[in-house]
Amino acid sequence: MGKGLVSRTEDYSQWYNEIVIKAGLADYSAVKGCMVIKPYGYAIWERMQRALDDMFKETGHSNAYFPLLIPKSFFSKEASHVEGFAKECAVVTHYRLKNSPDGIVVDETAKLEEELIIRPTSETIIWNTYKGWIQSYRDLPLLINQWANVVRWEMRTRLFLRTTEFLWQEGHTAHATAQEAIEETIRMMDVYAEFAEKWMSMPVMKGVKSANERFAGAVETYCIESLMQDGKALQSGTSHFLGQNFAKAFDVKFLNKEGKSDFVWATSWGVSTRLMGALVMTHSDDEGLVLPPMLAPHQVVIVPIYREEEQHQKINEVVSKLKKEFQTENIRSLYDDSDNRSPGWKFAEHELKGVPVRLAIGPKDLEKGTVEVYRRDLKKKEFVSIDGITAYVKNLLNEIQQNMYDKALAFRNEKMVKVDDYSTFKDILEKNGGFLLAHWDGTSETEEKIKEETKATIRCIPLNNEKEEGKCIYSGKPSQQRVIFAKAY
Amino acid sequence: MGKGLVSRTEDYSQWYNEIVIKAGLADYSAVKGCMVIKPYGYAIWERMQRALDDMFKETGHSNAYFPLLIPKSFFSKEASHVEGFAKECAVVTHYRLKNSPDGIVVDETAKLEEELIIRPTSETIIWNTYKGWIQSYRDLPLLINQWANVVRWEMRTRLFLRTTEFLWQEGHTAHATAQEAIEETIRMMDVYAEFAEKWMSMPVMKGVKSANERFAGAVETYCIESLMQDGKALQSGTSHFLGQNFAKAFDVKFLNKEGKSDFVWATSWGVSTRLMGALVMTHSDDEGLVLPPMLAPHQVVIVPIYREEEQHQKINEVVSKLKKEFQTENIRSLYDDSDNRSPGWKFAEHELKGVPVRLAIGPKDLEKGTVEVYRRDLKKKEFVSIDGITAYVKNLLNEIQQNMYDKALAFRNEKMVKVDDYSTFKDILEKNGGFLLAHWDGTSETEEKIKEETKATIRCIPLNNEKEEGKCIYSGKPSQQRVIFAKAY
Repeated sequence: MGKGLVSRTEDYSQWYNEIVIKAGLADYSAVKGCMVIKPYGYAIWERMQRALDDMFKETGHSNAYFPLLIPKSFFSKEASHVEGFAKECAVVTHYRLKNSPDGIVVDETAKLEEELIIRPTSETIIWNTYKGWIQSYRDLPLLINQWANVVRWEMRTRLFLRTTEFLWQEGHTAHATAQEAIEETIRMMDVYAEFAEKWMSMPVMKGVKSANERFAGAVETYCIESLMQDGKALQSGTSHFLGQNFAKAFDVKFLNKEGKSDFVWATSWGVSTRLMGALVMTHSDDEGLVLPPMLAPHQVVIVPIYREEEQHQKINEVVSKLKKEFQTENIRSLYDDSDNRSPGWKFAEHELKGVPVRLAIGPKDLEKGTVEVYRRDLKKKEFVSIDGITAYVKNLLNEIQQNMYDKALAFRNEKMVKVDDYSTFKDILEKNGGFLLAHWDGTSETEEKIKEETKATIRCIPLNNEKEEGKCIYSGKPSQQRVIFAKAY
Repeated sequence: MGKGLVSRTEDYSQWYNEIVIKAGLADYSAVKGCMVIKPYGYAIWERMQRALDDMFKETGHSNAYFPLLIPKSFFSKEASHVEGFAKECAVVTHYRLKNSPDGIVVDETAKLEEELIIRPTSETIIWNTYKGWIQSYRDLPLLINQWANVVRWEMRTRLFLRTTEFLWQEGHTAHATAQEAIEETIRMMDVYAEFAEKWMSMPVMKGVKSANERFAGAVETYCIESLMQDGKALQSGTSHFLGQNFAKAFDVKFLNKEGKSDFVWATSWGVSTRLMGALVMTHSDDEGLVLPPMLAPHQVVIVPIYREEEQHQKINEVVSKLKKEFQTENIRSLYDDSDNRSPGWKFAEHELKGVPVRLAIGPKDLEKGTVEVYRRDLKKKEFVSIDGITAYVKNLLNEIQQNMYDKALAFRNEKMVKVDDYSTFKDILEKNGGFLLAHWDGTSETEEKIKEETKATIRCIPLNNEKEEGKCIYSGKPSQQRVIFAKAY
């Protein structure tokens, strides 16, 4: 069983890679750092996209599409943005190839006057466009999202977690007031948190980033942070209040109701295929993927067990009726009736692929009017009467969705501990990982020192944080609140 | 009214550009040849995507995602493919920028060993990947589609019709036999034709391309061709039978049921945002867009007309009830209740944007229990009792969808004429355009001569073509069937 996955305790990192590959989520590609998202992985991503897209639209946003290529000079326009994004990126310098005795070569006569950068993020090209779209307060707010691919040249890559090209959505909104923009920033962080908790069964901490970890060009970065099973944090979504930085860089002004001209206020927010990595690492076990029912391409797999064709036919009849019932109840089911694999092989396969519920039906079940029901999350088996099985399964799927969340939350809470001295801090970080709630003096210097010495960063200053007098674990200077430190992906 | 669009007869090309811009479908961008798809245009594209995606899934396909960047050497592997695609394309040569006294410059130390090409189409990278996925007949057929952006460096661009970057879907399937692959090729052409006719109300001719117009690397290219209002053809979708060309180029073999090794058979097929251009040019008029209800973001717009707030409140109540009824019937409606625009302005705006049905409700309507109903396709107004208006509108939307198809079909049929001599051919082409059904001797030389002299190309050899003895209009040589000539976008 389990297709010989390495266990989590043996080698967490290898366990992760093996699941991603063997469960058919993704594959390496011929291009360094770029991945192929395989059909099974893409089907999960599509469900994520659909749910998020619905939430964006419910909150008033529309989708649009902006160019992949950005003129190099655009990156110089926002001072801090250039530092963060214009460095490791793919640069297009030519627009033609030609034949030569050595094969196909770049045509040196087809050199671009200005190099084009494959978007690492689209603030610059979008704000350059918004300049033409915004004249007065009547044009605001402008609430736009884009689903796109982006490229950030990465030296060390991991499937889903850090790839040179990845898929994401990026919202870019324009507002008449700072207040409105801040509300939007928080609203979208809340949307991300709701998506993570409801759809992915993944608990998150909401908070704001320290200056060091802030998005290049933002005034404030809000985020959701989740905790993986190895005790490392994973930033799962960010929402930025950009102030008037990009409006100033691209000269985007509007006439307000009083007829006065002012720069526009901005936000941007995004989640990416990184969430796929978070999903795997939050729930999966040594047998393979464990998928929350709301995102599982197949929520139920049905495996027939028989020796004679007559039995097979009878099972087919039962399943045919069952599948119709499932469809009526919007339960996504798969009948794995392929005849070139054994039931045992199929069990292991669907276990690896994390199908939430498995039903097995054999001749004895037909006699007794039962079905063998296996739930992936608890790896528990039971026999259930086939009468009312649809309602049973529907309820079970909800239970699994909730149970996965509860389990992940219990794990996260257990690993979220208050620490008051630096030696304990280092000790827990080393042995246990987790979210360490510690006092910090608020300076970038201290944060950098702690990062150098322990690799831990401030994941966020939790929202609605309890105020508490204390001393910075590193400098001993006074602090009014605890922040979350963790090693992170 | 009409926001001062140039008329079609005055300047068809400018009329098209103005509609695209003024109706909010797309905008020019800062990058030469690249466009911005605006929210209203993108909402139409999303509906196209959803409908096509559902059809692909119904025919057994799954989505996946392959890298944007392709190693240069891949293009040399399939001999004819390289000629067609490796020429005008965006070449990534470096992966880092750096600061210099002159601003941001390309870091020459970060030069790629092998240049990467932004995909102009993905056959090469996908078949390189399939090599690892296909071992035996059990792995076949492999039925995968990808929604993606592609880049083809174009010198002359037109919004939607020909842009350097565009959005599309590309299906790439692998089969055990030639027969199966050919069936798949035709199936997907049929899916495209069904989509065009049912969803876009756009009649198409199905056929195969001549050798000159065939996809680079294909054995046979099937296509759907539609006719625009200026008498020019627009290729609206292609489906290619690739034989074993890519399997041989990338060494993709499989073990068949008899245990013998053979190369895999392939297809690829695609439609793009070009369809947006086809949609505009098939139906729109001098007042603006005309959208088929099935693709319209808003199928119905409701405009209130009032002088006093009391009237306004009463209208609001009626509309509130109406909108609920519409929602129950899956009619997408918009209540344009903004108070800073006059009803006249709103009428012109929604006319320009092609909303299929407009309802206007004023104080007199409230008294009489009526609604003013305006249908965009025929520009006809009538008063309808508000009782049963939902059923009336639902029926009207179906009627509009059908009427738009019928009208476009009548236009296309009128412009599809048999021509038997070259001088008439040139004459009709010049004065009238259209699909010219003419005999052709089957040679590339003749096709090229005709193209040189008239700019007309063979759009397709129609499927299920009537056999008929005749003489080539150009060479006088014998021919067994007529083919479709036209000037094309």
